[in-house]
This record gives sequence, structure tokens and C-alpha cells, in this order.
Amino acid sequence: MLKPDSDAPHVCGLGWNEFVKKLEDFHGYAAPGALWGGIMVDMARERLKSLFGPDALFWVLVESYSCLPDAVQLLTPCTVGNRRLQVLDLNRYALTLYTKPGGQGVRIFVDGGKLGPWPHLQSWFMGLVDKKDQDANLLTNDIRLGGASACSMRAVRVPETYLRRERKGKIGLCPACGEPYPLRDGERCLACRGGFDLPVELKS
Amino acid sequence: MLKPDSDAPHVCGLGWNEFVKKLEDFHGYAAPGALWGGIMVDMARERLKSLFGPDALFWVLVESYSCLPDAVQLLTPCTVGNRRLQVLDLNRYALTLYTKPGGQGVRIFVDGGKLGPWPHLQSWFMGLVDKKDQDANLLTNDIRLGGASACSMRAVRVPETYLRRERKGKIGLCPACGEPYPLRDGERCLACRGGFDLPVELKS
Repeated sequence: MLKPDSDAPHVCGLGWNEFVKKLEDFHGYAAPGALWGGIMVDMARERLKSLFGPDALFWVLVESYSCLPDAVQLLTPCTVGNRRLQVLDLNRYALTLYTKPGGQGVRIFVDGGKLGPWPHLQSWFMGLVDKKDQDANLLTNDIRLGGASACSMRAVRVPETYLRRERKGKIGLCPACGEPYPLRDGERCLACRGGFDLPVELKS
Repeated sequence: MLKPDSDAPHVCGLGWNEFVKKLEDFHGYAAPGALWGGIMVDMARERLKSLFGPDALFWVLVESYSCLPDAVQLLTPCTVGNRRLQVLDLNRYALTLYTKPGGQGVRIFVDGGKLGPWPHLQSWFMGLVDKKDQDANLLTNDIRLGGASACSMRAVRVPETYLRRERKGKIGLCPACGEPYPLRDGERCLACRGGFDLPVELKS
């Protein structure tokens, strides 16, 4: 095992143990995917700084709902609710930090060809081992020591759709459900236009 | 103006000023929508407690990306990355707290018919006033004093789709992009099956 915090790798300015503690508070537990996500965020952030300077504003696109969004929300100013973090439900373990107005940035992703030297990381990530048979300490060690080297990074540009800032404009009451909605969404609110699985009111 | 924290309304166990401070740290600033969201989360949480007991595990469904997700992530154990918070992009200011396995819970939403007594809240929420003409203190006051009474709550049940827990299973490398993906997604990863606006690699 690694020694305690003094020599720990730093994650976006946090010592490893500090990062783990914050993650437990926010995410509920120190999920391996979120630990690895923290390392990925740190790497992408450093690269972005070297390209655009330390103070460049950035936005994030994440390609999986599993864990990664929480690493981003914990370690950067980008959250789902302030709309600086967008999540695509693609099940790819990848994230892109980008700038505006041009959309240039860096994408970091788990590189399947680089997992070999880290057997515990590999067997966990590729779903080759049952959760109950996984040694959590060995896995965490692999993530700390090998998480960075098992990723690749590319310079990218995000499409125009991520660069627009839409305003809600005037709000009206939906003639179907009666709730407030942006009139630019159409004659009825998006929920009442159908296609969504929505909560159903229970008769009292 | 209201007096300082001593007599402030409490939001999920936090004093008002404490809540504002945490929101500034996480969301970036004390956005009116997130302040109101905090009050909504508190109300729904209390109702859920009265229905299912104080220790009942719950999940959350939010119907807007604006601000609301951050109020939930700040005040509950439910986050996007631990998959206990789901966000539908419907532009309705509403959230549902629900339990499993039955999916029963409560939905709270902004009730357009109850905004009248709170003119600053109303003009801001309905988009009737330009941001630059909005008095932030009067708006915050309306949210603190009127935010709860301008909402309605209903007992609901969420559909089956929210109650399933999917496992990723075995992971393979996508023959198109080469990245790891769950084999249950098909012969190629969801990204390579198309229909998404994805970052484009820049030639170096």
C-alpha cells in the first residue's frame, strides 16, 4: 500500500485522502470510477491550462452517467445545474473540457490498450470479476498508480450545439397540465407533448 | 429585509445563510432558481418523511436542467453520478422524490396560480422583467417568504423505468472507435451508432 497523504498524488489541488473524503461526502462512497474520474479531470485540467492559460473558463462534456459526472462536479466549477456540465448517456468513460467561443479543448478517455499493466484495474473496468471477488485495496492502488497512464488524451473541438446559450424567454401556463413552461417550447409544454415516462398522480 | 440567520427558515437542516454559502461554493452563485429549489427539496423531503419514515431511502427525478439539479445534489445524497438523481429536459420547475421498490413518492412543482402574492418572484419566474431591472434583494426575500406557498405537492408513482437497476456486464472494445463499452449496447458503442453531437478530433 501507498503511504498516507504526504506523498499522495494530488487531484486538482487536493491530496488523495482529502479527495477521497470529499468524494465520500458528495457521492456517498469512494467509488472506483469516481476516483479514476478525479485523476482524469486533473489531467484534462492541466492540459487545458497549458493550452489556454490557468484562468481560461471551461465547460465539460461527459460521456457516461456512471460516477464521472460527480468527479467533475466535485473538482471543477462545472455542475449539471449551472449548465456548465453536460452528460451524454453513451457508456463511454470519457470527458471533454472545452473553451468558448471556439469550442476547442481536450478529450480524455480510458484507453483499452493501456490497461494491461494494471490487472486489478483491468479486471474491474472490463467487468471480468464479480464485485464480491474484487479486492478494493488492490483496485484503489491500481487506480492511484495506473489511472493516469491507462488514459489517452486528444485535442478536440466540440460542435456548435454545445456553444449556444439559450434563453428561456417568456413563460406561460401550459393549457394541458397548467404548469409554467417557456412559450418557445410550443403550444404545450415538452412534458405534455409526450414521449416521456412521467410520474403519475395517485388518487387520494 | 429579514433578520440574520437566527430566525431564518431552515433548508434541509441548514440555516438560510449556511445554505446560501454552500450554494455559492457548489453552483457558483446564489441563483434564485437554486434558492427556490432548496425550499422545494426541503418541502418534498419533509412530506416523504411523514409518509415513509425519516430513514426511507429515496431517489429524485427533476424536470429541468436549470438550477434544480444542484439544489438536489447539495441537500440530498442523490447525485447525477451516483444515479440517484435523474434529470429530464422538460423545462418544468418540478421535482419528484420517490422510494423503491414501489416507486411511490411526492412531486412538488411551481404552481402558476399561486405566484400572485409575490410580485418579484412572479415577474422573475415568468420572465416579465429583464435581469438588469430585477432587484435581487426583493426577489430573494420573495423566495424566502413565498417560495413554499407558491408550490403545490401531489402524491405520485413513478413508472417502472425509474425502478430498474441495470448492470453494465462485460465490457469490450468498440470495433469502430476502439474505446471500451458495454457489450450489451450492441455491435458498436452508442456513440458510434450515431445521432449524437460529439467532439471532433483536431489534426495535429
